[in-house]
Amino acid sequence: MARNHRRKAKQVGLPPGTLVHVGEKKAEQVRITVIDYDAAAIQRKTVSQTKQCLPFKETATVTWINIDGLHDVKVVEDIGRLFDLHPLILEDILHTNQRPKIENHERHLFVVMRMIRFDDETGRILSEQFSMVLGEHYLITFQECVGDVFEPIRQRLGDPQSRLRKNGPDYLLYRLMDSLVDHYFVVLEKVGDRIEALQEEVARDPAEGTLQNIHRMRREMISFRRAVWPVRDLISSLQRQETPLLSEAYQVFFNDLYDHIVRVVDTTESYREMISGMLDLYMSSISNKMNAVMKVLTIIATIFIPLTFIAGVYGMNFDTMPELHWRWGYATIWGIMGAVFIAMLFYFKRKKWL
Amino acid sequence: MARNHRRKAKQVGLPPGTLVHVGEKKAEQVRITVIDYDAAAIQRKTVSQTKQCLPFKETATVTWINIDGLHDVKVVEDIGRLFDLHPLILEDILHTNQRPKIENHERHLFVVMRMIRFDDETGRILSEQFSMVLGEHYLITFQECVGDVFEPIRQRLGDPQSRLRKNGPDYLLYRLMDSLVDHYFVVLEKVGDRIEALQEEVARDPAEGTLQNIHRMRREMISFRRAVWPVRDLISSLQRQETPLLSEAYQVFFNDLYDHIVRVVDTTESYREMISGMLDLYMSSISNKMNAVMKVLTIIATIFIPLTFIAGVYGMNFDTMPELHWRWGYATIWGIMGAVFIAMLFYFKRKKWL
Amino acid sequence: MARNHRRKAKQVGLPPGTLVHVGEKKAEQVRITVIDYDAAAIQRKTVSQTKQCLPFKETATVTWINIDGLHDVKVVEDIGRLFDLHPLILEDILHTNQRPKIENHERHLFVVMRMIRFDDETGRILSEQFSMVLGEHYLITFQECVGDVFEPIRQRLGDPQSRLRKNGPDYLLYRLMDSLVDHYFVVLEKVGDRIEALQEEVARDPAEGTLQNIHRMRREMISFRRAVWPVRDLISSLQRQETPLLSEAYQVFFNDLYDHIVRVVDTTESYREMISGMLDLYMSSISNKMNAVMKVLTIIATIFIPLTFIAGVYGMNFDTMPELHWRWGYATIWGIMGAVFIAMLFYFKRKKWL
Amino acid sequence: MARNHRRKAKQVGLPPGTLVHVGEKKAEQVRITVIDYDAAAIQRKTVSQTKQCLPFKETATVTWINIDGLHDVKVVEDIGRLFDLHPLILEDILHTNQRPKIENHERHLFVVMRMIRFDDETGRILSEQFSMVLGEHYLITFQECVGDVFEPIRQRLGDPQSRLRKNGPDYLLYRLMDSLVDHYFVVLEKVGDRIEALQEEVARDPAEGTLQNIHRMRREMISFRRAVWPVRDLISSLQRQETPLLSEAYQVFFNDLYDHIVRVVDTTESYREMISGMLDLYMSSISNKMNAVMKVLTIIATIFIPLTFIAGVYGMNFDTMPELHWRWGYATIWGIMGAVFIAMLFYFKRKKWL
Amino acid sequence: MARNHRRKAKQVGLPPGTLVHVGEKKAEQVRITVIDYDAAAIQRKTVSQTKQCLPFKETATVTWINIDGLHDVKVVEDIGRLFDLHPLILEDILHTNQRPKIENHERHLFVVMRMIRFDDETGRILSEQFSMVLGEHYLITFQECVGDVFEPIRQRLGDPQSRLRKNGPDYLLYRLMDSLVDHYFVVLEKVGDRIEALQEEVARDPAEGTLQNIHRMRREMISFRRAVWPVRDLISSLQRQETPLLSEAYQVFFNDLYDHIVRVVDTTESYREMISGMLDLYMSSISNKMNAVMKVLTIIATIFIPLTFIAGVYGMNFDTMPELHWRWGYATIWGIMGAVFIAMLFYFKRKKWL
Repeated sequence: MARNHRRKAKQVGLPPGTLVHVGEKKAEQVRITVIDYDAAAIQRKTVSQTKQCLPFKETATVTWINIDGLHDVKVVEDIGRLFDLHPLILEDILHTNQRPKIENHERHLFVVMRMIRFDDETGRILSEQFSMVLGEHYLITFQECVGDVFEPIRQRLGDPQSRLRKNGPDYLLYRLMDSLVDHYFVVLEKVGDRIEALQEEVARDPAEGTLQNIHRMRREMISFRRAVWPVRDLISSLQRQETPLLSEAYQVFFNDLYDHIVRVVDTTESYREMISGMLDLYMSSISNKMNAVMKVLTIIATIFIPLTFIAGVYGMNFDTMPELHWRWGYATIWGIMGAVFIAMLFYFKRKKWL
Repeated sequence: MARNHRRKAKQVGLPPGTLVHVGEKKAEQVRITVIDYDAAAIQRKTVSQTKQCLPFKETATVTWINIDGLHDVKVVEDIGRLFDLHPLILEDILHTNQRPKIENHERHLFVVMRMIRFDDETGRILSEQFSMVLGEHYLITFQECVGDVFEPIRQRLGDPQSRLRKNGPDYLLYRLMDSLVDHYFVVLEKVGDRIEALQEEVARDPAEGTLQNIHRMRREMISFRRAVWPVRDLISSLQRQETPLLSEAYQVFFNDLYDHIVRVVDTTESYREMISGMLDLYMSSISNKMNAVMKVLTIIATIFIPLTFIAGVYGMNFDTMPELHWRWGYATIWGIMGAVFIAMLFYFKRKKWL
Repeated sequence: MARNHRRKAKQVGLPPGTLVHVGEKKAEQVRITVIDYDAAAIQRKTVSQTKQCLPFKETATVTWINIDGLHDVKVVEDIGRLFDLHPLILEDILHTNQRPKIENHERHLFVVMRMIRFDDETGRILSEQFSMVLGEHYLITFQECVGDVFEPIRQRLGDPQSRLRKNGPDYLLYRLMDSLVDHYFVVLEKVGDRIEALQEEVARDPAEGTLQNIHRMRREMISFRRAVWPVRDLISSLQRQETPLLSEAYQVFFNDLYDHIVRVVDTTESYREMISGMLDLYMSSISNKMNAVMKVLTIIATIFIPLTFIAGVYGMNFDTMPELHWRWGYATIWGIMGAVFIAMLFYFKRKKWL
Repeated sequence: MARNHRRKAKQVGLPPGTLVHVGEKKAEQVRITVIDYDAAAIQRKTVSQTKQCLPFKETATVTWINIDGLHDVKVVEDIGRLFDLHPLILEDILHTNQRPKIENHERHLFVVMRMIRFDDETGRILSEQFSMVLGEHYLITFQECVGDVFEPIRQRLGDPQSRLRKNGPDYLLYRLMDSLVDHYFVVLEKVGDRIEALQEEVARDPAEGTLQNIHRMRREMISFRRAVWPVRDLISSLQRQETPLLSEAYQVFFNDLYDHIVRVVDTTESYREMISGMLDLYMSSISNKMNAVMKVLTIIATIFIPLTFIAGVYGMNFDTMPELHWRWGYATIWGIMGAVFIAMLFYFKRKKWL
Repeated sequence: MARNHRRKAKQVGLPPGTLVHVGEKKAEQVRITVIDYDAAAIQRKTVSQTKQCLPFKETATVTWINIDGLHDVKVVEDIGRLFDLHPLILEDILHTNQRPKIENHERHLFVVMRMIRFDDETGRILSEQFSMVLGEHYLITFQECVGDVFEPIRQRLGDPQSRLRKNGPDYLLYRLMDSLVDHYFVVLEKVGDRIEALQEEVARDPAEGTLQNIHRMRREMISFRRAVWPVRDLISSLQRQETPLLSEAYQVFFNDLYDHIVRVVDTTESYREMISGMLDLYMSSISNKMNAVMKVLTIIATIFIPLTFIAGVYGMNFDTMPELHWRWGYATIWGIMGAVFIAMLFYFKRKKWL
């Protein structure tokens, strides 16, 4: 997360709207995919030059232009010029550390969210910026790398009966946002599994690695929360946008989306609380263990130190030590030591240390 | 609680309104019960087919249709079609992890709450989703499993003098919500008992299990709070709904209900504070105990280690050790050891360790 | 406090407005006292039957009817019927675990607060529900047990010159509320004394009981806060009530009352902070003490364990141990031990442990 | 601070507006000082009787009447009658534990703040109530004891060119409030110095007194905060008062004052955070120290306990112990003990305890 | 940070608007730089006398007057008189401990922010006050010392094609503010690096210096937060200012700036959380280490103390100790000691201490 603001420094002092890519280069090559459809027909192609997108701009059909990879500033700049996007939109697309937000630029609605996925192999949460520009007949989306969570939507588009095919780009926007939010649940589910596993571990037998894991999870939740928390305001503000680009008819869907994101935020907060509870539990466990260690030490030392003292006394070499010459001296001393031993045991029993 | 969002993942990418049951299958078979009444008469029956509900739809009498068990998507779908419910209502009914909420769909008012009960046998809090759809002449309710908290209401319905019989489905809705909230008090009462018991335990003699119990209770309160907290907004929003489905006359009852839920939330917060106080107390107790253990160890060791040293000295085998040959050497050494012993005791006394 | 919601469970499922007493039976017998006055005359009597109150209902004189003891539901029901109170008012009066609140029922203004007193004998905070119903010419008050904080007001009523005698029941209501809030200060004063005493104790010489006391006080403050916090909103809302029952002229008094309750809340918060500061201090004290104990142990053990080792070496029985036969062997060994001893002392001095 | 609410108890039950002094008697004798001025002339005198103030009441010149000492209720009462102050104003003046506040009584504006000074000798924060009543041509101020922070203002009044002389009592009110707030900065400066000194102490070498000092400072900041926090609202509300007593022209000055108090509040919050950070640091230091102590003990004990055991073995008196009679037995045993010693050192080195 | 309010004390009691420099003298000599430009031409000069600025006041070209160094009150006073600034503006410029804020003085817009830089050499955060006064054709800026973050802007001004040259002083104001906020990101980046390094250190091998570093960073973040937090409100309020000095056209830029500062605040909060997480982790590490130390001590002591006791017993000098004369006595005793040793190891193994 500490990397979220990186490279910003590089462009300090440049005028606003200067296009510089801020973020890691995540994709090898920029890939532009165009899907153009209406209720009757659908056409998909991968174009190699940005100007190939131009024909779709003014047609009545819905056009979804998806750009994978942002390191080639030229491509974004071209798209911007072709579709007449505001320079600040382009800047925000390229600085891949935006806070989720919505901006209403009259002819365009600009939405930034984060696409969050769980990498099962490394057990890490992957997060990339996903920017959407809604125009009258088109939706342009920008992702940092190839591979996304929208495969089911692409399949549904193939079905002429699907609601997607019968509606405009604003409905497509909703469906993409819905997919993103749905994946937040998927990530939370994985996180929930890990929390449960860790809780087991803490309660049963906490290792030192456990602590590191809890803290890593805690940091990941801080970062996850930063990505989802603003989405609530985003959707709520989107519902109130006065723009012809968004059909009133979808209000109910956005209400539903709002409910989902509220639930995501709620769950995130609960997880944060549970993680912090785990830390308390861990600390208590450590204290309990230390206490147990101390008790063992104390019992052993408290029993044997006095006994050793007694033995030491009768190991002295004074000329005159009458006890040494008593007939039952040795036996008596064993008796005394036994008595001390039993008294100690009794004492610990009463103290409930045994 | 970590399970609250489960299986959501399964339906990621499906279009909104696609009906898939999300949650555990809790009931063996779906059971549909219809109670149809007005001031004059009452009729109860268990129907086996959803279409048997249709005759009750438009009659002037009040009809309460209750569905137990949600795993059979078909049934919910049929009910939805018969009563013309919005697809998103049906989706929310089937995804049994909703946040309590209210939705105004013009011809229907949709309310989701959680029915929370305390299982005396396992000492666990049971929670299931309870969805209510209020129409002009009917109220349709959906629960996840057979068995609920409404038996007293069903009995009151049998009494022709009861206010229930004289009022519409909106009053029935109020009474069901009131029953749900009343049961929150019952659960809190049980939780209160357990908190008191734990407090006793912590103050008197905390075992290691105590800590686990406090933490489990803490997690349960996090989850309980998530279920009741949104109900406050729900009721407050319900009071402001502009809908002909709700009679103005019941405003005062909903005010009362609002008071109750505020009290539930208040008590929940207090319990959370008390639980967190208990954790502090537990930690302090552990520290105190460790301190006591340390003192015992220190007293014993500090007294006997010097004495053992003295004994060790006169156990040495040097040729020339004049003390060994003194007449009162042995007695003197006992005297010295006694003096050390008493000095130590005096020191500990002054330090208030004894 | 955990008892606040008790017995609610008993009446779960009953229709709203059903009258059941929820709370402990605190008084032996219900006592009804009537004080009827105007500027000219005053009349006090204790009535045995509720219907004896009826003559005072419509007279132009101010009537204060006070009921001590709520276990006899019949009495409350009768009063309710005589004065035409809303069933929900009666229900709230009987459920003695209300959150402080105000309700405007057109012809009646219903105010619930808690009467809080400090029992000097047991050192405990006593709290009971005090309900007030303001009508046009009368004020009816309900308390859980005999004995209250209004004796000075009753005395003032005897003085024909007092402002009480010249004003209506709304002024009486204000004076009763003012008395209740004044007693919150009295309780806070006692709590303040105890906090100071505990602070002394913690700083000087914390015993194990100290911790229990701090935690008990903490719980009492949680409960006290629940009783006073809502009163702020109550008074603020009372100032905005649009009702002919309250004279505009008393606005300034209610402003004053509002100031008082804000101060009560402020002080409560400060006390909570101070109590939580005391817990930190206590924990630090325990740690400091443990540290001191450890140092003593370490100093003694670290000095004598090596010395005992040396003595042990020369207690060995090897045939060939030349040192044993040196002339100054014994003296030398004492010298070495003395040197070790002094080196250790020097080391501890430098470490500032001595 | 716990004393803030004292003696309130004494007047419980009295009617509002009854004048009783609540607070410590801080001054020997009440002193009344009158400064009467306009642009042309200035007149100062100390009056002995309250009625001597009357002549100044209606004159067009600005009159500042300052009363030092509140224990003589009679004086305040007289002033109240002479200037026609509302009884509740007088009550608040005498109860010297008010929360800072402003009250608009049509013909008077009543402002209560606290005058806070730092006593360099005792190192304690002194706080007294300062009440101001603004009338059309006069400002009456009440302090608990002789001596205040307004000397510079009195000097400025001597200068006919000063803005004070050219403006009305509302400007004087502003200047007094400004002086009070300026002194909050002075106190914060002293507190800041002490925080820095304590931070040094905690980081370098915390003594037990350190902890007490941190906690005392913490309590003082709680109390300081209670005195300044409400002033923010006070000034903000003062800016919105609709009263002819305050000239619109001073709006910009009050804005400035608002900025100052916001900064005071900000700094107070930062100090609170820093103090709480210091407590954490202190606790960590204690833990670190305990750890260091433990290490020393463990190193010494772990090295010498096994060695002592070895020496003990060869101090046994068995008839048959072949090693005792070996030629190099004694030397060998020294070799073994040396090896153990070195192995232990090596082990601690690897564990980084040395 | 504790120094933020220093020297304020010196001017306590002076009338508002009295000009006294409050802060450290940071620059040797006051330097006044004037840049006067329009789309056609640009002129830069360093003036030695304030009155040389006057000619630029009313020209239609944009004039940026920058003053480095504030200790010479005379200069600021002169500028104030020449440009007719309100005395309170001048006072705030000289008191270099202002909270970031905006003030609308009709003919001038006054903005105070803090310029924050990271000193790579000392690893410390440097902070100075930066004041801006926007007039109709000019922008006057005041810094505490020579050297700032605006070099790139000065370079852009050299380019006739740059947007700066084509716009008014309000756009220049925006660009300066943008540069300041951009530098907050730079500082956060450095802080982020240090947090990561510290996190590594804490997880791997915390030294005592680590704790000091974490706490220093924590204090620096408290202070950083105080500098940036109010900027959010400042910009938000700036967007709502009704002033002809700010062109409506730049609204979109200020929206962008607002987004940036929200991100700065967000990141600051996250860092604070991460730092506090690090403290928890540090404390847990210390506890873990102490636990490890205790275990080593306990294992060694618990094994050897009983063995030493056994050896001590057979070192006693009683006349009658049959075991000493047994043939296999010595061997047997070794056997017993071996058995105790192994039993102990087994016990620790089971306890998972080994």
